[in-house]
Amino acid sequence: MNDTFLRACRGEKTEYTPVWFMRQAGRYLPEYQRVRAKFTFLELCKSPELCTEVTLQPIDILGFDAAILFSDILIPMEAMNLSLEFHEGKGPIFPHPVRDQKAVDALVIPDPEERTPFVLETIRLLRKELKVPLIGFAGAPFTLATYLVEGGSSRVFLETKKMMFQAPELYDALLQKITRCTSLYLQAQARAGAQALQIFDSWAGVLAPCDFARFALPYVQTIISDLRRATDVPIIYFANNGASLLELSKTAGADVLGLDWRINIRDAIARAGNHAVQGNLDPIALFLPKAQLEERIKRLLEDARGARGHIFNLGHGIVPQTPPLQARIAVEAVHRFSGK
Amino acid sequence: MNDTFLRACRGEKTEYTPVWFMRQAGRYLPEYQRVRAKFTFLELCKSPELCTEVTLQPIDILGFDAAILFSDILIPMEAMNLSLEFHEGKGPIFPHPVRDQKAVDALVIPDPEERTPFVLETIRLLRKELKVPLIGFAGAPFTLATYLVEGGSSRVFLETKKMMFQAPELYDALLQKITRCTSLYLQAQARAGAQALQIFDSWAGVLAPCDFARFALPYVQTIISDLRRATDVPIIYFANNGASLLELSKTAGADVLGLDWRINIRDAIARAGNHAVQGNLDPIALFLPKAQLEERIKRLLEDARGARGHIFNLGHGIVPQTPPLQARIAVEAVHRFSGK
Repeated sequence: MNDTFLRACRGEKTEYTPVWFMRQAGRYLPEYQRVRAKFTFLELCKSPELCTEVTLQPIDILGFDAAILFSDILIPMEAMNLSLEFHEGKGPIFPHPVRDQKAVDALVIPDPEERTPFVLETIRLLRKELKVPLIGFAGAPFTLATYLVEGGSSRVFLETKKMMFQAPELYDALLQKITRCTSLYLQAQARAGAQALQIFDSWAGVLAPCDFARFALPYVQTIISDLRRATDVPIIYFANNGASLLELSKTAGADVLGLDWRINIRDAIARAGNHAVQGNLDPIALFLPKAQLEERIKRLLEDARGARGHIFNLGHGIVPQTPPLQARIAVEAVHRFSGK
Repeated sequence: MNDTFLRACRGEKTEYTPVWFMRQAGRYLPEYQRVRAKFTFLELCKSPELCTEVTLQPIDILGFDAAILFSDILIPMEAMNLSLEFHEGKGPIFPHPVRDQKAVDALVIPDPEERTPFVLETIRLLRKELKVPLIGFAGAPFTLATYLVEGGSSRVFLETKKMMFQAPELYDALLQKITRCTSLYLQAQARAGAQALQIFDSWAGVLAPCDFARFALPYVQTIISDLRRATDVPIIYFANNGASLLELSKTAGADVLGLDWRINIRDAIARAGNHAVQGNLDPIALFLPKAQLEERIKRLLEDARGARGHIFNLGHGIVPQTPPLQARIAVEAVHRFSGK
């Protein structure tokens, strides 16, 4: 068992820097494409056998030091009794956005074992196969709420912010329900065998710091304090585009702070306090010629030296156009330059 | 003549805090919609009479302390011999993206008087009418290049970054041409009567700091040092989503740094050095109930007290759904709380 990743999360000494990539099980891999071609995205997400297969692919092919459960942050939202659709190239759609008290009241807090058994079964299957730690995950409540309130992706998040600003009690009622659902969902993942948990706050960076502090962070803190009572797995909090939120997000209670690529990792470490950090290569830097890609990785590793722990990752998900060979060059460079 | 805005740009004492809003001449105003209904966006941009009319509307209706030329950052790019289309709800499109040496060679450096006379004529007309200063503007070279290389808007800017990373000489040749075009364009605006110039780097925030330093900032520095030889009007540089770029963008040479809403203005001022700042209310905060909107503006003004100069603005363009009454409440609150 390679537990380098888990030790880095806990700030313990490691022989080399562990590496995994967000969306490492995904469209840039022809092996994934072959599986995906035969099923819809939701069919794939709901089949423990297929999820297990695609989760394992990048570990076998590219040698990552951690696996992340193949799923989608919106899966537990569907389980709250919402209809969810994925359309090719258009992102997720909730045809009935949640914008009033009636819609909030209609949301159920699902029992994860009952409503998302396929996720937990995937975790159990993966733990039998994996020689590296398995990361479970969920979306952060604010990020999840944006999809529910907007009805899908957004650009300026007008409806979500209008609800915050004009109907803060309704917003809080919605977020409380999402928080409870997410808390139970992550606890169930830990019980099923997830060895670390990442909370993705993909849209945190659209909030002014004062709004992040009031309308996003407290719900994350609740989830993490719930988790601390239920499990001792390391927790990673990734507030995307959160360079100016670091002083706030470091109070979330996580062990590890995920960093996007818009901040120099040395500056982030200086501000992150007593946290391990995860990140933060620009995903598009994987398109650099080999020598320059290696040079950039070397510099990033040097810049990260002062961290309590460093897990190398991209600053956001790997893009589908990435040649797998480039991902391999990067993984090998991280290992080589960090002493493996 | 109300020159409060110009004095704030120069860091001189003002009786109150001047305010204008990005996209203040725009779709949230029914008066604008009525003009726009009769013409395409490009027809509007190319008519000095219509541009003058819509530029004046928000000054008359809402009492802003500065006017900004109604135009689009891509107008001088079309003048480089590119075909440019605007489709309703889809943003700008360059049907022939610039991705190779031949396409770069085909770009001309336009004489602004010859190829964009309507912009300069608009400035001359506006100066006869306005009782507040007139801001001219252009896009920053990196931001302009993304549109040319991607062929329109983008999400991950793959083609632009691929050109940077894989063909840096081609990228530099393209950026040099855009820089020269922009430099001449802004100089011509100053000669025509623009009393301040804003450089919009709308997409700067998608770059890692190391890439911003190499692939975006130097071209802005060139433009500003050209401008310093040609004119003494104040220069505003707005690197959107640039919280972690401040230490770099303050070396651009501008008088004023524009700030988006993702950073607390007090933190930004502490890092901005000897600059006036412009910003930075979340545009969606205009949807707050009156009392809370006023409270937020009051706090922002207090947070900005330590600045060398402060021009109140939104952190990004006002959104079309904004009720004009809310914009008026904000303008009045800025004036009242800052001592007008």
